Amino acid sequence: MGKIRRNERIGAMVKILCSHPNKIFTLNNFCEMFQTAKSTISDDVVIIREIFNKFELGDIETVVGAAGGVRFLPKLFEKDFEFIQDICDKLSVPDRILPGGFLYTSDILFMPDVIQKFGEMLATQFQHTNPDFVITVETKGIPIALMTARALNRPVVLARRENKVTEGSTVSINYVSASSKRIQTMSLVKRAVQKGQKGLIVDDFMKGGGTARGLMELLHEFEAEIAGVGVIISTADPEEKLVKDYKSLMVLKQVDEVQRKAIVEPSSWIRK
Amino acid sequence: MGKIRRNERIGAMVKILCSHPNKIFTLNNFCEMFQTAKSTISDDVVIIREIFNKFELGDIETVVGAAGGVRFLPKLFEKDFEFIQDICDKLSVPDRILPGGFLYTSDILFMPDVIQKFGEMLATQFQHTNPDFVITVETKGIPIALMTARALNRPVVLARRENKVTEGSTVSINYVSASSKRIQTMSLVKRAVQKGQKGLIVDDFMKGGGTARGLMELLHEFEAEIAGVGVIISTADPEEKLVKDYKSLMVLKQVDEVQRKAIVEPSSWIRK
Repeated sequence: MGKIRRNERIGAMVKILCSHPNKIFTLNNFCEMFQTAKSTISDDVVIIREIFNKFELGDIETVVGAAGGVRFLPKLFEKDFEFIQDICDKLSVPDRILPGGFLYTSDILFMPDVIQKFGEMLATQFQHTNPDFVITVETKGIPIALMTARALNRPVVLARRENKVTEGSTVSINYVSASSKRIQTMSLVKRAVQKGQKGLIVDDFMKGGGTARGLMELLHEFEAEIAGVGVIISTADPEEKLVKDYKSLMVLKQVDEVQRKAIVEPSSWIRK
Repeated sequence: MGKIRRNERIGAMVKILCSHPNKIFTLNNFCEMFQTAKSTISDDVVIIREIFNKFELGDIETVVGAAGGVRFLPKLFEKDFEFIQDICDKLSVPDRILPGGFLYTSDILFMPDVIQKFGEMLATQFQHTNPDFVITVETKGIPIALMTARALNRPVVLARRENKVTEGSTVSINYVSASSKRIQTMSLVKRAVQKGQKGLIVDDFMKGGGTARGLMELLHEFEAEIAGVGVIISTADPEEKLVKDYKSLMVLKQVDEVQRKAIVEPSSWIRK
Protein backbone atom coordinates (compact mmCIF):
# COMPACT_ATOMS: atom_id res chain seq x y z
CA MET A 1 0.00 0.00 0.00
CA GLY A 2 3.02 2.30 0.39
CA LYS A 3 3.44 4.99 2.99
CA ILE A 4 0.16 6.40 4.23
CA ARG A 5 0.03 10.12 4.82
CA ARG A 6 -1.57 11.88 7.78
CA ASN A 7 -4.29 13.32 5.49
CA GLU A 8 -5.25 9.84 4.47
CA ARG A 9 -5.25 8.44 8.00
CA ILE A 10 -7.39 11.30 9.26
CA GLY A 11 -9.91 11.01 6.41
CA ALA A 12 -10.27 7.25 6.87
CA MET A 13 -10.42 7.40 10.68
CA VAL A 14 -13.12 10.07 10.65
CA LYS A 15 -15.24 7.97 8.28
CA ILE A 16 -14.84 4.83 10.38
CA LEU A 17 -15.44 6.52 13.74
CA CYS A 18 -18.49 8.52 12.60
CA SER A 19 -20.16 5.58 10.87
CA HIS A 20 -20.35 3.92 14.29
CA PRO A 21 -21.10 6.48 17.01
CA ASN A 22 -20.16 5.31 20.50
CA LYS A 23 -18.28 2.26 19.23
CA ILE A 24 -14.80 1.99 20.69
CA PHE A 25 -12.03 1.32 18.17
CA THR A 26 -8.68 0.32 19.63
CA LEU A 27 -5.63 2.25 18.51
CA ASN A 28 -4.23 -1.10 17.42
CA ASN A 29 -7.09 -1.32 14.89
CA PHE A 30 -5.72 1.76 13.22
CA CYS A 31 -2.04 0.85 13.71
CA GLU A 32 -2.64 -2.31 11.68
CA MET A 33 -4.77 -0.60 9.08
CA PHE A 34 -2.17 2.11 8.47
CA GLN A 35 0.97 0.14 9.35
CA THR A 36 2.16 2.81 11.68
CA ALA A 37 3.13 3.36 15.32
CA LYS A 38 0.66 3.89 18.15
CA SER A 39 2.17 7.30 18.94
CA THR A 40 1.41 8.43 15.39
CA ILE A 41 -2.22 7.30 15.70
CA SER A 42 -2.45 9.07 19.07
CA ASP A 43 -1.30 12.28 17.40
CA ASP A 44 -3.93 11.76 14.67
CA VAL A 45 -6.64 11.34 17.31
CA VAL A 46 -5.63 14.63 18.95
CA ILE A 47 -5.89 16.40 15.60
CA ILE A 48 -9.30 14.85 14.86
CA ARG A 49 -10.55 15.93 18.28
CA GLU A 50 -9.43 19.51 17.57
CA ILE A 51 -11.16 19.45 14.18
CA PHE A 52 -14.40 18.20 15.75
CA ASN A 53 -14.30 20.91 18.41
CA LYS A 54 -13.44 23.67 15.99
CA PHE A 55 -16.18 22.86 13.50
CA GLU A 56 -18.73 21.66 16.09
CA LEU A 57 -18.99 18.14 14.71
CA GLY A 58 -19.14 16.16 17.97
CA ASP A 59 -16.74 14.69 20.53
CA ILE A 60 -13.81 12.36 20.00
CA GLU A 61 -13.27 10.57 23.29
CA THR A 62 -10.29 8.51 24.35
CA VAL A 63 -11.32 5.60 26.56
CA VAL A 64 -8.56 4.25 28.79
CA GLY A 65 -8.18 0.74 30.19
CA ALA A 66 -8.14 -2.80 28.80
CA ALA A 67 -11.19 -2.23 26.59
CA GLY A 68 -9.91 1.23 25.73
CA GLY A 69 -9.57 3.06 22.47
CA VAL A 70 -11.22 5.96 20.75
CA ARG A 71 -14.84 6.72 19.87
CA PHE A 72 -17.03 9.36 18.29
CA LEU A 73 -19.81 10.79 20.46
CA PRO A 74 -22.59 13.08 19.24
CA LYS A 75 -22.72 16.37 21.14
CA LEU A 76 -25.22 19.23 21.37
CA PHE A 77 -24.26 22.56 19.82
CA GLU A 78 -25.98 25.91 19.47
CA LYS A 79 -26.83 25.11 15.85
CA ASP A 80 -28.83 22.07 17.02
CA PHE A 81 -31.15 24.37 18.96
CA GLU A 82 -31.71 26.28 15.74
CA PHE A 83 -32.36 22.98 14.01
CA ILE A 84 -35.10 22.11 16.52
CA GLN A 85 -36.59 25.60 16.24
CA ASP A 86 -36.72 25.21 12.49
CA ILE A 87 -38.59 21.89 12.82
CA CYS A 88 -41.00 23.50 15.31
CA ASP A 89 -41.72 26.23 12.77
CA LYS A 90 -42.40 23.63 10.09
CA LEU A 91 -44.81 21.76 12.40
CA SER A 92 -46.64 24.90 13.56
CA VAL A 93 -48.63 25.44 10.38
CA PRO A 94 -52.43 25.26 9.97
CA ASP A 95 -52.08 22.88 7.02
CA ARG A 96 -50.98 20.15 9.42
CA ILE A 97 -54.07 20.23 11.63
CA LEU A 98 -56.15 17.09 11.16
CA PRO A 99 -59.78 16.39 12.10
CA GLY A 100 -59.94 15.60 15.81
CA GLY A 101 -57.24 18.10 16.72
CA PHE A 102 -54.32 15.90 15.67
CA LEU A 103 -51.18 17.20 14.01
CA TYR A 104 -49.73 15.60 10.88
CA THR A 105 -46.06 14.94 11.62
CA SER A 106 -45.29 11.71 9.74
CA ASP A 107 -43.48 13.31 6.83
CA ILE A 108 -40.96 15.07 9.06
CA LEU A 109 -40.66 12.23 11.56
CA PHE A 110 -39.81 9.83 8.74
CA MET A 111 -37.03 11.87 7.17
CA PRO A 112 -33.83 9.98 7.95
CA ASP A 113 -31.57 13.02 8.38
CA VAL A 114 -34.04 14.72 10.73
CA ILE A 115 -34.61 11.61 12.77
CA GLN A 116 -30.87 10.85 12.86
CA LYS A 117 -30.25 14.28 14.37
CA PHE A 118 -33.13 13.83 16.85
CA GLY A 119 -31.71 10.45 17.85
CA GLU A 120 -28.28 11.96 18.41
CA MET A 121 -29.80 14.74 20.52
CA LEU A 122 -31.72 12.28 22.70
CA ALA A 123 -28.62 10.09 22.98
CA THR A 124 -26.59 12.98 24.41
CA GLN A 125 -29.12 13.16 27.27
CA PHE A 126 -28.95 9.46 28.19
CA GLN A 127 -25.40 8.53 27.24
CA HIS A 128 -24.29 8.76 30.90
CA THR A 129 -26.96 6.22 31.99
CA ASN A 130 -25.22 3.57 29.87
CA PRO A 131 -28.32 1.65 28.73
CA ASP A 132 -28.03 -1.91 27.37
CA PHE A 133 -30.79 -1.37 24.83
CA VAL A 134 -33.37 1.11 23.56
CA ILE A 135 -36.98 -0.04 23.82
CA THR A 136 -40.09 1.23 22.06
CA VAL A 137 -43.51 -0.11 21.16
CA GLU A 138 -44.68 -0.27 17.57
CA THR A 139 -45.16 1.68 15.31
CA LYS A 140 -44.19 5.30 14.95
CA GLY A 141 -41.56 5.26 17.69
CA ILE A 142 -39.41 2.82 15.73
CA PRO A 143 -37.44 5.38 13.66
CA ILE A 144 -36.46 7.53 16.66
CA ALA A 145 -35.68 4.41 18.72
CA LEU A 146 -33.44 3.12 15.94
CA MET A 147 -31.58 6.41 15.51
CA THR A 148 -31.15 6.91 19.26
CA ALA A 149 -29.85 3.34 19.47
CA ARG A 150 -27.50 4.05 16.56
CA ALA A 151 -26.07 7.05 18.39
CA LEU A 152 -25.63 4.94 21.54
CA ASN A 153 -24.36 1.85 19.69
CA ARG A 154 -27.03 -0.32 21.29
CA PRO A 155 -29.74 -2.64 19.92
CA VAL A 156 -33.43 -1.75 19.68
CA VAL A 157 -35.95 -3.95 21.50
CA LEU A 158 -39.46 -3.74 20.08
CA ALA A 159 -42.60 -4.36 22.12
CA ARG A 160 -45.67 -5.32 20.10
CA ARG A 161 -49.32 -4.40 20.41
CA GLU A 162 -50.33 -8.03 19.86
CA ASN A 163 -48.61 -11.38 20.21
CA LYS A 164 -46.97 -12.51 17.01
CA VAL A 165 -46.79 -16.27 16.53
CA THR A 166 -43.64 -15.80 14.50
CA GLU A 167 -41.51 -14.52 17.37
CA GLY A 168 -41.66 -17.16 20.08
CA SER A 169 -42.87 -16.96 23.66
CA THR A 170 -43.68 -13.54 25.05
CA VAL A 171 -44.54 -11.68 28.23
CA SER A 172 -47.64 -9.49 27.99
CA ILE A 173 -49.04 -6.73 30.17
CA ASN A 174 -52.20 -4.68 30.15
CA TYR A 175 -52.02 -0.95 30.69
CA VAL A 176 -54.38 1.98 30.52
CA SER A 177 -53.92 4.65 27.89
CA ALA A 178 -53.87 7.92 29.82
CA SER A 179 -55.70 9.91 27.16
CA SER A 180 -58.34 7.41 25.96
CA LYS A 181 -58.64 5.53 29.29
CA ARG A 182 -58.81 2.32 27.29
CA ILE A 183 -57.11 -0.88 28.33
CA GLN A 184 -54.34 -1.83 25.96
CA THR A 185 -51.95 -4.75 25.67
CA MET A 186 -48.28 -4.85 24.89
CA SER A 187 -46.03 -7.84 24.69
CA LEU A 188 -42.35 -8.53 24.41
CA VAL A 189 -40.48 -11.63 23.30
CA LYS A 190 -38.99 -13.37 26.33
CA ARG A 191 -35.52 -13.73 24.93
CA ALA A 192 -35.27 -10.05 24.00
CA VAL A 193 -34.34 -8.79 27.48
CA GLN A 194 -32.26 -10.34 30.28
CA LYS A 195 -32.79 -9.78 33.98
CA GLY A 196 -30.71 -6.87 35.28
CA GLN A 197 -30.28 -5.16 31.92
CA LYS A 198 -31.05 -1.48 31.58
CA GLY A 199 -33.47 -0.17 28.96
CA LEU A 200 -33.91 3.35 27.60
CA ILE A 201 -37.56 3.99 26.69
CA VAL A 202 -37.98 6.03 23.49
CA ASP A 203 -41.11 7.04 21.61
CA ASP A 204 -42.23 9.63 19.09
CA PHE A 205 -45.02 11.22 21.11
CA MET A 206 -46.18 11.52 24.71
CA LYS A 207 -49.55 12.85 25.77
CA GLY A 208 -50.68 11.27 29.06
CA GLY A 209 -47.61 9.05 29.37
CA GLY A 210 -49.61 5.79 29.39
CA THR A 211 -47.47 4.09 26.76
CA ALA A 212 -44.19 4.98 28.49
CA ARG A 213 -45.71 3.83 31.79
CA GLY A 214 -46.72 0.57 30.11
CA LEU A 215 -43.17 0.05 28.82
CA MET A 216 -41.85 0.67 32.35
CA GLU A 217 -44.18 -2.00 33.70
CA LEU A 218 -43.17 -4.36 30.93
CA LEU A 219 -39.48 -3.87 31.80
CA HIS A 220 -40.38 -4.42 35.44
CA GLU A 221 -41.77 -7.86 34.48
CA PHE A 222 -38.35 -8.70 33.05
CA GLU A 223 -36.64 -7.40 36.21
CA ALA A 224 -34.88 -4.92 33.99
CA GLU A 225 -33.87 -1.39 35.00
CA ILE A 226 -34.99 1.83 33.36
CA ALA A 227 -32.33 4.21 32.06
CA GLY A 228 -34.83 6.97 31.26
CA VAL A 229 -37.62 8.06 28.97
CA GLY A 230 -37.06 10.18 25.86
CA VAL A 231 -39.61 11.33 23.26
CA ILE A 232 -39.61 13.65 20.28
CA ILE A 233 -42.79 15.56 21.11
CA SER A 234 -44.65 15.83 24.41
CA THR A 235 -47.89 17.73 24.90
CA ALA A 236 -48.20 20.66 27.30
CA ASP A 237 -51.61 19.32 28.31
CA PRO A 238 -52.02 17.35 30.54
CA GLU A 239 -49.19 18.77 32.58
CA GLU A 240 -49.34 15.83 34.98
CA LYS A 241 -48.27 12.74 33.11
CA LEU A 242 -48.12 9.11 34.21
CA VAL A 243 -44.35 9.34 33.88
CA LYS A 244 -42.51 11.84 36.06
CA ASP A 245 -39.07 11.98 34.48
CA TYR A 246 -38.79 12.26 30.76
CA LYS A 247 -37.00 14.35 28.16
CA SER A 248 -38.76 15.60 25.06
CA LEU A 249 -37.22 17.58 22.24
CA MET A 250 -40.34 19.61 21.50
CA VAL A 251 -43.57 20.55 23.24
CA LEU A 252 -46.93 20.65 21.50
CA LYS A 253 -48.54 23.64 23.19
CA GLN A 254 -51.76 23.85 21.28
CA VAL A 255 -53.73 22.45 18.34
CA ASP A 256 -56.88 24.43 17.76
CA GLU A 257 -58.98 22.90 15.04
CA VAL A 258 -61.46 25.78 14.86
CA GLN A 259 -58.94 28.61 14.98
CA ARG A 260 -56.63 26.57 12.68
CA LYS A 261 -53.69 27.20 14.95
CA ALA A 262 -50.89 24.83 16.02
CA ILE A 263 -48.01 25.75 18.31
CA VAL A 264 -44.94 23.55 18.71
CA GLU A 265 -41.92 24.84 20.67
CA PRO A 266 -38.50 23.50 21.61
CA SER A 267 -38.46 22.00 25.13
CA SER A 268 -37.21 24.37 27.82
CA TRP A 269 -34.01 22.38 28.50
CA ILE A 270 -33.11 22.89 24.85
CA ARG A 271 -33.81 26.60 24.76
CA LYS A 272 -30.87 28.76 25.69
CA MET B 1 -10.67 31.14 13.08
CA GLY B 2 -7.18 31.51 11.58
CA LYS B 3 -5.77 29.56 8.67
CA ILE B 4 -7.34 26.13 8.26
CA ARG B 5 -5.01 23.31 7.30
CA ARG B 6 -5.73 20.61 4.73
CA ASN B 7 -5.86 17.98 7.53
CA GLU B 8 -8.63 19.93 9.19
CA ARG B 9 -10.61 20.50 6.02
CA ILE B 10 -10.42 16.83 5.08
CA GLY B 11 -11.48 15.66 8.57
CA ALA B 12 -14.45 18.03 8.68
CA MET B 13 -15.54 17.38 5.09
CA VAL B 14 -15.46 13.60 5.57
CA LYS B 15 -17.65 13.91 8.68
CA ILE B 16 -20.16 16.18 6.97
CA LEU B 17 -20.34 14.17 3.74
CA CYS B 18 -20.65 10.77 5.46
CA SER B 19 -23.31 11.92 7.95
CA HIS B 20 -25.56 12.57 4.95
CA PRO B 21 -25.07 9.90 2.29
CA ASN B 22 -26.25 10.96 -1.15
CA LYS B 23 -26.76 14.58 -0.13
CA ILE B 24 -25.06 17.00 -2.49
CA PHE B 25 -22.95 19.70 -0.83
CA THR B 26 -21.84 22.54 -3.08
CA LEU B 27 -18.16 23.40 -3.13
CA ASN B 28 -19.24 26.89 -2.08
CA ASN B 29 -20.54 25.39 1.17
CA PHE B 30 -17.03 24.31 1.97
CA CYS B 31 -15.35 27.45 0.56
CA GLU B 32 -17.34 29.53 3.05
CA MET B 33 -16.82 27.17 5.92
CA PHE B 34 -13.05 27.06 5.43
CA GLN B 35 -12.58 30.53 3.93
CA THR B 36 -10.63 29.17 1.04
CA ALA B 37 -10.67 29.02 -2.76
CA LYS B 38 -12.75 26.60 -4.80
CA SER B 39 -9.62 25.14 -6.40
CA THR B 40 -8.31 24.21 -2.94
CA ILE B 41 -11.60 22.48 -2.05
CA SER B 42 -11.51 20.66 -5.40
CA ASP B 43 -8.07 19.35 -4.53
CA ASP B 44 -9.37 18.23 -1.11
CA VAL B 45 -12.21 16.35 -2.78
CA VAL B 46 -9.75 14.50 -5.02
CA ILE B 47 -7.73 13.47 -1.97
CA ILE B 48 -10.85 12.31 -0.11
CA ARG B 49 -11.92 10.27 -3.13
CA GLU B 50 -8.51 8.57 -3.20
CA ILE B 51 -8.72 7.83 0.52
CA PHE B 52 -12.17 6.29 0.14
CA ASN B 53 -11.01 4.11 -2.75
CA LYS B 54 -7.82 3.03 -1.05
CA PHE B 55 -9.49 2.01 2.22
CA GLU B 56 -12.76 0.79 0.66
CA LEU B 57 -14.97 3.30 2.46
CA GLY B 58 -17.37 4.22 -0.36
CA ASP B 59 -17.54 6.61 -3.31
CA ILE B 60 -17.05 10.35 -3.37
CA GLU B 61 -18.87 11.61 -6.43
CA THR B 62 -18.63 14.99 -8.08
CA VAL B 63 -21.96 16.10 -9.51
CA VAL B 64 -21.73 18.70 -12.28
CA GLY B 65 -24.29 21.31 -13.29
CA ALA B 66 -26.31 24.01 -11.57
CA ALA B 67 -27.31 21.78 -8.64
CA GLY B 68 -23.83 20.28 -8.60
CA GLY B 69 -21.37 19.64 -5.83
CA VAL B 70 -19.97 16.61 -4.06
CA ARG B 71 -21.59 13.69 -2.28
CA PHE B 72 -20.76 10.49 -0.47
CA LEU B 73 -22.25 7.29 -1.88
CA PRO B 74 -22.16 3.89 -0.18
CA LYS B 75 -20.52 1.23 -2.34
CA LEU B 76 -20.27 -2.57 -2.18
CA PHE B 77 -16.88 -4.09 -1.39
CA GLU B 78 -15.61 -7.63 -0.95
CA LYS B 79 -15.69 -7.21 2.82
CA ASP B 80 -19.46 -6.56 2.65
CA PHE B 81 -19.96 -10.01 1.21
CA GLU B 82 -18.07 -11.39 4.18
CA PHE B 83 -20.30 -9.28 6.43
CA ILE B 84 -23.43 -10.86 4.93
CA GLN B 85 -21.93 -14.34 5.20
CA ASP B 86 -21.20 -13.69 8.85
CA ILE B 87 -24.83 -12.65 9.49
CA CYS B 88 -26.04 -15.75 7.62
CA ASP B 89 -23.90 -17.91 9.91
CA LYS B 90 -25.37 -16.19 12.96
CA LEU B 91 -28.92 -16.80 11.69
CA SER B 92 -28.31 -20.44 10.74
CA VAL B 93 -28.30 -21.83 14.29
CA PRO B 94 -30.85 -24.26 15.79
CA ASP B 95 -31.40 -21.97 18.77
CA ARG B 96 -33.25 -19.55 16.50
CA ILE B 97 -35.88 -22.01 15.28
CA LEU B 98 -39.28 -21.14 16.71
CA PRO B 99 -42.44 -23.28 16.96
CA GLY B 100 -44.18 -23.26 13.58
CA GLY B 101 -40.93 -23.27 11.63
CA PHE B 102 -40.21 -19.57 12.04
CA LEU B 103 -36.75 -18.14 12.55
CA TYR B 104 -35.98 -15.62 15.29
CA THR B 105 -34.23 -12.71 13.61
CA SER B 106 -35.40 -9.65 15.57
CA ASP B 107 -32.24 -9.19 17.62
CA ILE B 108 -30.00 -8.99 14.55
CA LEU B 109 -32.51 -7.04 12.43
CA PHE B 110 -32.77 -4.40 15.16
CA MET B 111 -29.06 -3.75 15.59
CA PRO B 112 -28.49 -0.28 14.14
CA ASP B 113 -25.00 -0.95 12.73
CA VAL B 114 -26.15 -4.16 11.01
CA ILE B 115 -29.28 -2.57 9.60
CA GLN B 116 -27.35 0.53 8.53
CA LYS B 117 -25.00 -1.66 6.51
CA PHE B 118 -27.95 -3.62 5.05
CA GLY B 119 -29.62 -0.34 4.11
CA GLU B 120 -26.47 0.87 2.39
CA MET B 121 -26.16 -2.42 0.50
CA LEU B 122 -29.76 -2.25 -0.74
CA ALA B 123 -29.29 1.42 -1.62
CA THR B 124 -26.37 0.57 -3.92
CA GLN B 125 -28.76 -1.64 -5.92
CA PHE B 126 -31.46 1.01 -6.40
CA GLN B 127 -29.47 4.25 -6.42
CA HIS B 128 -29.64 4.40 -10.24
CA THR B 129 -33.48 4.24 -10.21
CA ASN B 130 -33.54 7.59 -8.39
CA PRO B 131 -36.61 6.95 -6.17
CA ASP B 132 -38.47 9.86 -4.54
CA PHE B 133 -39.18 7.87 -1.39
CA VAL B 134 -38.82 4.48 0.26
CA ILE B 135 -42.09 2.77 1.19
CA THR B 136 -42.76 -0.08 3.62
CA VAL B 137 -45.69 -1.38 5.62
CA GLU B 138 -45.54 -1.63 9.40
CA THR B 139 -43.85 -3.07 11.42
CA LYS B 140 -40.61 -4.95 11.07
CA GLY B 141 -39.68 -3.44 7.73
CA ILE B 142 -39.37 0.03 9.23
CA PRO B 143 -35.71 -0.19 10.32
CA ILE B 144 -34.44 -1.40 6.95
CA ALA B 145 -36.67 1.11 5.14
CA LEU B 146 -35.26 3.93 7.27
CA MET B 147 -31.64 2.91 6.76
CA THR B 148 -32.10 2.39 3.01
CA ALA B 149 -33.77 5.81 2.87
CA ARG B 150 -30.88 7.27 4.87
CA ALA B 151 -28.39 5.90 2.34
CA LEU B 152 -30.46 7.33 -0.53
CA ASN B 153 -31.21 10.64 1.24
CA ARG B 154 -34.95 10.15 0.76
CA PRO B 155 -37.95 10.09 3.13
CA VAL B 156 -39.72 6.95 4.31
CA VAL B 157 -43.42 6.55 3.59
CA LEU B 158 -45.20 4.16 5.92
CA ALA B 159 -48.30 2.19 4.96
CA ARG B 160 -50.42 0.99 7.90
CA ARG B 161 -52.30 -2.23 8.54
CA GLU B 162 -55.31 -0.28 9.79
CA ASN B 163 -56.58 3.24 9.37
CA LYS B 164 -55.35 5.61 12.05
CA VAL B 165 -57.68 8.45 12.90
CA THR B 166 -54.68 10.55 13.86
CA GLU B 167 -53.22 10.74 10.36
CA GLY B 168 -55.93 12.21 8.16
CA SER B 169 -57.63 10.79 5.08
CA THR B 170 -56.21 7.62 3.59
CA VAL B 171 -56.41 5.32 0.59
CA SER B 172 -56.89 1.65 1.47
CA ILE B 173 -56.54 -1.53 -0.54
CA ASN B 174 -57.22 -5.19 0.15
CA TYR B 175 -54.69 -7.77 -0.86
CA VAL B 176 -54.17 -11.49 -0.37
CA SER B 177 -51.27 -12.75 1.67
CA ALA B 178 -49.53 -15.27 -0.57
CA SER B 179 -48.60 -17.64 2.25
CA SER B 180 -51.72 -17.52 4.45
CA LYS B 181 -54.17 -16.81 1.59
CA ARG B 182 -55.95 -14.41 3.93
CA ILE B 183 -57.33 -11.07 2.84
CA GLN B 184 -55.44 -8.18 4.42
CA THR B 185 -55.80 -4.43 4.33
CA MET B 186 -53.20 -1.73 4.04
CA SER B 187 -53.73 1.98 3.93
CA LEU B 188 -51.68 5.05 3.21
CA VAL B 189 -52.26 8.69 4.09
CA LYS B 190 -53.35 10.58 0.98
CA ARG B 191 -50.89 13.40 1.38
CA ALA B 192 -47.91 11.07 1.74
CA VAL B 193 -47.43 10.40 -2.00
CA GLN B 194 -47.93 12.60 -5.06
CA LYS B 195 -48.96 11.38 -8.50
CA GLY B 196 -45.96 10.59 -10.68
CA GLN B 197 -43.52 10.08 -7.81
CA LYS B 198 -41.38 6.96 -7.72
CA GLY B 199 -41.33 4.68 -4.67
CA LEU B 200 -38.81 2.02 -3.68
CA ILE B 201 -40.52 -0.85 -1.83
CA VAL B 202 -38.46 -2.20 1.07
CA ASP B 203 -39.29 -4.87 3.65
CA ASP B 204 -37.51 -7.18 6.05
CA PHE B 205 -38.85 -10.48 4.75
CA MET B 206 -40.45 -11.93 1.64
CA LYS B 207 -42.09 -15.32 1.43
CA GLY B 208 -44.88 -15.37 -1.16
CA GLY B 209 -44.46 -11.72 -2.08
CA GLY B 210 -48.05 -10.77 -1.13
CA THR B 211 -47.04 -7.76 0.94
CA ALA B 212 -44.75 -6.34 -1.75
CA ARG B 213 -47.50 -6.97 -4.30
CA GLY B 214 -49.94 -5.12 -2.03
CA LEU B 215 -47.58 -2.16 -1.77
CA MET B 216 -47.27 -2.13 -5.57
CA GLU B 217 -51.06 -1.99 -5.86
CA LEU B 218 -51.23 0.73 -3.24
CA LEU B 219 -48.70 2.82 -5.20
CA HIS B 220 -50.73 2.16 -8.32
CA GLU B 221 -53.75 3.76 -6.59
CA PHE B 222 -51.64 6.90 -6.12
CA GLU B 223 -50.53 6.76 -9.77
CA ALA B 224 -47.00 6.47 -8.48
CA GLU B 225 -44.19 4.55 -10.15
CA ILE B 226 -42.23 1.67 -8.67
CA ALA B 227 -38.46 1.95 -8.48
CA GLY B 228 -37.97 -1.63 -7.32
CA VAL B 229 -38.41 -4.07 -4.46
CA GLY B 230 -35.68 -4.81 -1.92
CA VAL B 231 -35.82 -7.08 1.13
CA ILE B 232 -33.36 -8.38 3.69
CA ILE B 233 -34.38 -12.04 3.60
CA SER B 234 -36.38 -13.91 0.97
CA THR B 235 -37.35 -17.55 1.22
CA ALA B 236 -36.23 -20.15 -1.33
CA ASP B 237 -39.72 -21.66 -1.15
CA PRO B 238 -42.01 -20.80 -2.90
CA GLU B 239 -39.72 -20.14 -5.83
CA GLU B 240 -42.57 -18.42 -7.72
CA LYS B 241 -43.44 -15.22 -5.87
CA LEU B 242 -46.16 -12.69 -6.54
CA VAL B 243 -43.40 -10.20 -7.33
CA LYS B 244 -41.09 -10.97 -10.25
CA ASP B 245 -38.26 -8.52 -9.78
CA TYR B 246 -36.79 -8.09 -6.34
CA LYS B 247 -33.41 -8.03 -4.64
CA SER B 248 -32.83 -9.75 -1.33
CA LEU B 249 -29.62 -9.76 0.65
CA MET B 250 -30.08 -13.28 2.04
CA VAL B 251 -32.08 -16.38 1.18
CA LEU B 252 -33.73 -18.57 3.80
CA LYS B 253 -33.21 -22.02 2.31
CA GLN B 254 -34.66 -24.16 5.03
CA VAL B 255 -36.07 -24.15 8.55
CA ASP B 256 -36.63 -27.69 9.77
CA GLU B 257 -38.28 -27.71 13.15
CA VAL B 258 -37.87 -31.46 13.69
CA GLN B 259 -34.28 -31.75 12.51
CA ARG B 260 -33.49 -28.43 14.25
CA LYS B 261 -31.79 -27.11 11.17
CA ALA B 262 -31.87 -23.63 9.64
CA ILE B 263 -30.00 -22.57 6.52
CA VAL B 264 -29.60 -18.93 5.52
CA GLU B 265 -27.28 -18.00 2.64
CA PRO B 266 -26.20 -14.79 0.92
CA SER B 267 -28.23 -14.13 -2.25
CA SER B 268 -26.57 -15.27 -5.45
CA TRP B 269 -25.99 -11.73 -6.78
CA ILE B 270 -23.98 -11.04 -3.64
CA ARG B 271 -21.86 -14.13 -3.79
CA LYS B 272 -18.69 -13.80 -5.81
